[in-house]
Amino acid sequence: MFMARVIGNVVATRKEESLVGSRFMIIQRLDKNENPIGDECIAADYIGAGKGELVLVGTGSSVRVEDKHAGRPIDMAILGIIDEVQ
Amino acid sequence: MFMARVIGNVVATRKEESLVGSRFMIIQRLDKNENPIGDECIAADYIGAGKGELVLVGTGSSVRVEDKHAGRPIDMAILGIIDEVQ
Amino acid sequence: MFMARVIGNVVATRKEESLVGSRFMIIQRLDKNENPIGDECIAADYIGAGKGELVLVGTGSSVRVEDKHAGRPIDMAILGIIDEVQ
Amino acid sequence: MFMARVIGNVVATRKEESLVGSRFMIIQRLDKNENPIGDECIAADYIGAGKGELVLVGTGSSVRVEDKHAGRPIDMAILGIIDEVQ
Amino acid sequence: MFMARVIGNVVATRKEESLVGSRFMIIQRLDKNENPIGDECIAADYIGAGKGELVLVGTGSSVRVEDKHAGRPIDMAILGIIDEVQ
Repeated sequence: MFMARVIGNVVATRKEESLVGSRFMIIQRLDKNENPIGDECIAADYIGAGKGELVLVGTGSSVRVEDKHAGRPIDMAILGIIDEVQ
Repeated sequence: MFMARVIGNVVATRKEESLVGSRFMIIQRLDKNENPIGDECIAADYIGAGKGELVLVGTGSSVRVEDKHAGRPIDMAILGIIDEVQ
Repeated sequence: MFMARVIGNVVATRKEESLVGSRFMIIQRLDKNENPIGDECIAADYIGAGKGELVLVGTGSSVRVEDKHAGRPIDMAILGIIDEVQ
Repeated sequence: MFMARVIGNVVATRKEESLVGSRFMIIQRLDKNENPIGDECIAADYIGAGKGELVLVGTGSSVRVEDKHAGRPIDMAILGIIDEVQ
Repeated sequence: MFMARVIGNVVATRKEESLVGSRFMIIQRLDKNENPIGDECIAADYIGAGKGELVLVGTGSSVRVEDKHAGRPIDMAILGIIDEVQ
């Protein structure tokens, strides 16, 4: 998992049918001082995150272990809104 | 997931039998301003993408969770055509 | 797996329900001489690690193979406290 | 997946029993112009590839989804011989 | 998979119970000319490797597909001793 900021989103009309209804956010990974690290990614939004928010991002098969998220080709997801970095 | 542009494809006559019929596209990952980031990859085309198109790419076991895509050794796939980056 | 130091933690009030009760630590990966390598990550704490401790970190689906850790979207976890590097 | 050239192989007499009979090739990943990208890896040879050949390489659990390849600790495999890059 | 040299090990008294009895080796990945590439990692030793030995390392869920290695949070393991690089 890592910390990131939501910096945009993409719209894809033609896509895998199982992805209809998911929102795909562009995120920039950050270190604890909020400096950018690594490349931008696209994550499905599980939580209702908005542009500019600081979020917790999960990767890989972990984001499909819950029944409600199984069965869709998603490899990265926003799992929470980060309120505080200590 | 990440955004990429289709820049070519590869042809492999001798290959794992389960891969017969799949198209393998060469893709270049991009940031939201369409600057190249990271190395070129090869992704199976699930959506009918053409050279030059901007696409949404998924990785890992996520691209095999749908029944229609299970059972083939594919670790990266084009999941959608990106119409707009916001 | 890799060696890391716990350098902080994040608080996320709004998050996937299955993550309630987990602690999310910010970790810095280290080489054997304790020089930082790679980017900071966020790992779930399975062991009761405190800030400043040297820890063993696991990644991917491995951190969900034990029944007690299955079913939550966690892709990185602190698995042990490192006492000695030989 | 990615494109690579076979540049050698390794011999390991003492190894996990399930790996007996597999050939382990050293591969160098390439971009579409055949420039080296990234680090050398070791991939199991599923296809009968020879040194110097241009190959299609798959990674992760994808290379174990077919019954004939299940049950062995292989995370990277040569899946095809690339005849043409377009 | 990749080639690496065993350069040390870590001792962790307090750890996930399922990890009791496993040895955790610090490894440095190498290219075919034995030049270091990438960052040091920690791998479980499946084979009885000693410090200084040249080894074959596997990653991800592949190292848990054999029954004898299932059920423990291990994402990287030493799978063989490399006798020769050709």
